[in-house]
Amino acid sequence: MLFDLETLPPQDRYKIMSATIVPRPIAWITTKSRNGLVNAAPFSFFNMMGNDPPTIAIGIMPNGRVLKDTAANILETGEFVVNLVSEAHASAMNVTCIDAPPEVDELILAGLEAVPSDLVAPPRILGAEVAFECTNLSSLMTGPLQMIVIGRVLRAHIEDRFVLNQERCHIDTEALKLVARMHGGGVYARTTDLFHLDRPSWADWQRTA
Amino acid sequence: MLFDLETLPPQDRYKIMSATIVPRPIAWITTKSRNGLVNAAPFSFFNMMGNDPPTIAIGIMPNGRVLKDTAANILETGEFVVNLVSEAHASAMNVTCIDAPPEVDELILAGLEAVPSDLVAPPRILGAEVAFECTNLSSLMTGPLQMIVIGRVLRAHIEDRFVLNQERCHIDTEALKLVARMHGGGVYARTTDLFHLDRPSWADWQRTA
Repeated sequence: MLFDLETLPPQDRYKIMSATIVPRPIAWITTKSRNGLVNAAPFSFFNMMGNDPPTIAIGIMPNGRVLKDTAANILETGEFVVNLVSEAHASAMNVTCIDAPPEVDELILAGLEAVPSDLVAPPRILGAEVAFECTNLSSLMTGPLQMIVIGRVLRAHIEDRFVLNQERCHIDTEALKLVARMHGGGVYARTTDLFHLDRPSWADWQRTA
Repeated sequence: MLFDLETLPPQDRYKIMSATIVPRPIAWITTKSRNGLVNAAPFSFFNMMGNDPPTIAIGIMPNGRVLKDTAANILETGEFVVNLVSEAHASAMNVTCIDAPPEVDELILAGLEAVPSDLVAPPRILGAEVAFECTNLSSLMTGPLQMIVIGRVLRAHIEDRFVLNQERCHIDTEALKLVARMHGGGVYARTTDLFHLDRPSWADWQRTA
């Protein structure tokens, strides 16, 4: 069945793309406004984009006819923290989805505490299993009020119990129990049902073919 | 525990980021070279970035000291197809990870067939539950040979049995059984273990607070 995204209304394009491009990792972003107000909100149009330099991308949609607080804060200050979301923090993350005015600190609403970051002004979330301190490497407007923030990761904070070997940078991914965004009004996925595939090599393939 | 991504070697940054930014949706990309050779390869630095216009982003790393075939083909032709990956196609997708030379058609190796696209030269994969025909809206180099491809989705092909209501653009996401990339050499996740969270509203919050 064919869907012509050039002619469908934007809300239908949203339904089709957000229901099929799954599961999406979640960036739980903390920012600080020029006036010092802390903001926290989750974004699932997010992923790693490279390691050299270490880059991530976040797609941020408008809030009606204005930029979301997170987008405005990143554009105005150039700094943000990406906290990752585990099962243990899923409910608190969901509270920070709330449509509260800019002066409301979503972290307080969600019963969370902020910890000062080392290199950037926005705090990270206390208890977040993983947090990345980031600067805004670049941003692109891809439509009216629709933007992609490219972040450069300066440093990662990972809770001690998930670091299997610090020197080898060996992380216990399964123990992190991170969650992802799925489709519809509020469906999420756990990362519990795993399987393994060995990457094939061309040398082996030619030997056995 | 702190990891300084400014001073760690690139391969360590890769380990930390790819082991924590999970689960990642997979773009199984088909391209066609200027000479007409079809290429297929999976990329998990991928996500939706917006719906107006409908945009996606893909982070593509180099193949040693040169661009990957997918990156070169996109930069040279401006066209590609993003096929999504279900459990049923996970093994075939994995075959297309192979380090074969450019003249090898990975789809044939994997026992797959290509179907002509409507608007772009690269074919889509026969049987792929979802395929997006895309043009390259823009591309950014974020480092030497490290790029982000921003795609504009022209049209979506979705297998009939997953479209619950075409007019309402209602898709049966769970039935798609899409898989995601996790950590390490070859760990993947199924999208089976789901839960639901109702998004809070500020109006309700103030009433009950």
